[in-house]
Amino acid sequence: MSDLVRISMSLENSLLENFDEYVENQGYPTRSEAIKALMRQSLSEQAWTQNQLVAGSVTLVYDHHRQGIVKRLMDVQHDFGAVIVSTQHVHLDHHHCLEIIVVKGKASLIRELVGVFKSMKGVKHNSPVMVSVGKSLA
Amino acid sequence: MSDLVRISMSLENSLLENFDEYVENQGYPTRSEAIKALMRQSLSEQAWTQNQLVAGSVTLVYDHHRQGIVKRLMDVQHDFGAVIVSTQHVHLDHHHCLEIIVVKGKASLIRELVGVFKSMKGVKHNSPVMVSVGKSLA
Amino acid sequence: MSDLVRISMSLENSLLENFDEYVENQGYPTRSEAIKALMRQSLSEQAWTQNQLVAGSVTLVYDHHRQGIVKRLMDVQHDFGAVIVSTQHVHLDHHHCLEIIVVKGKASLIRELVGVFKSMKGVKHNSPVMVSVGKSLA
Amino acid sequence: MSDLVRISMSLENSLLENFDEYVENQGYPTRSEAIKALMRQSLSEQAWTQNQLVAGSVTLVYDHHRQGIVKRLMDVQHDFGAVIVSTQHVHLDHHHCLEIIVVKGKASLIRELVGVFKSMKGVKHNSPVMVSVGKSLA
Repeated sequence: MSDLVRISMSLENSLLENFDEYVENQGYPTRSEAIKALMRQSLSEQAWTQNQLVAGSVTLVYDHHRQGIVKRLMDVQHDFGAVIVSTQHVHLDHHHCLEIIVVKGKASLIRELVGVFKSMKGVKHNSPVMVSVGKSLA
Repeated sequence: MSDLVRISMSLENSLLENFDEYVENQGYPTRSEAIKALMRQSLSEQAWTQNQLVAGSVTLVYDHHRQGIVKRLMDVQHDFGAVIVSTQHVHLDHHHCLEIIVVKGKASLIRELVGVFKSMKGVKHNSPVMVSVGKSLA
Repeated sequence: MSDLVRISMSLENSLLENFDEYVENQGYPTRSEAIKALMRQSLSEQAWTQNQLVAGSVTLVYDHHRQGIVKRLMDVQHDFGAVIVSTQHVHLDHHHCLEIIVVKGKASLIRELVGVFKSMKGVKHNSPVMVSVGKSLA
Repeated sequence: MSDLVRISMSLENSLLENFDEYVENQGYPTRSEAIKALMRQSLSEQAWTQNQLVAGSVTLVYDHHRQGIVKRLMDVQHDFGAVIVSTQHVHLDHHHCLEIIVVKGKASLIRELVGVFKSMKGVKHNSPVMVSVGKSLA
């Protein structure tokens, strides 16, 4: 964890009052925590679009009765071993599996992985969530 | 415009460094302006989902050769006169019109208007953009 | 308007049943209209991210008492005359203006315009909505 | 898996041509797969906003050196045992943990869980991804 620094800023009183209501409404413990959450979210969006280092998860739902899909998914995960950290597998119902793959690496490579999942018949959902990890996770 | 107030907060040095790069990268004039933009965006999202007062635009594209659509659009806009401020109309090509409707009022009523446009054959795009105007626009 | 063509596809019965409920729930007049709306939305997102031709609106809120802002906004709009079609101006309250600018052109140029607005002190909201107009508006 | 049914629909030729390019561009194996992916995505969004049954993941990043956070996270996960299926934990760097929690249940209860994470100091990212599982996963 890096050292703490202190910043200050001016803003319109009405904006502050409205934002303080938002902070309470959303359940953040303090105004500073809410502002820091908005900052981190912006950094994560930027990291994902500008091909920086990210970490996160890819959530898949697939029908494991689809011919060859289990082997195909395993092969793909080995091809992308450089960015895949681990996998968690849950049986949703008789047909469907929920598989959550933890990833870490260059955004472009993870996008490529998501694209391969998109091209596979039987993969019904495919959602990445990424956070920025550039220069020591802020 | 309300009076200015000054706030201060502590944060990790690494988060501040990363955010300052983001500010420059995005073209904001100062860090304070960037933080205030994130605050206002959060307030607008909250206003739209929690049925507060909003103002903004609804952008429509429609095919004006579709039977009855011009009259229908006119009728709807009169039905929702309480939230419609004005309209701007542009001829996109031989078939298509771009119509931008300025609205102001309760989010629920504007959502209802957007729903009516959704139900009309010939309306091909239909996108609302709203900002919070609650308690003097912050 | 181009000629109509007919396509058909197979899908799981349960997906169709759930989607038909969605169609009714959302207020679309028919299932075909709902599918076409999803198609157009995907095309618009792609046009905006891949620098194709788009049309749409940029919704601004600004404080017209801010020194020099009215002249600055006018100058910018003349600099970007190639993509700006027209402008609609509404007085929101004593301090705030809502200005909706209709644009049409290459996505990259419109992004640049949005970036310039972002860099201006006094511009409090700044939201683009774009639709694809590539190869005759689909 | 439910039985297959066949549907057909008419659409403008230009829309079809543009969509077929999109399908190829995005890497979908067929046009039908692309349309079905759009359908499922709409259903998932609706399930999440209308408090239906969903399954998915909540991706957290937190600083495990923050006093009491590990115990607090454990307690919360037990309180919400009814919707939590399993958890995957990854050490991101000296300070940060990436924790992905698989959930299944009513959207409102999962929203409540996400809200509790939001209120905890030290939780730096907190992103839910949900898919609809209503009436046999479509």
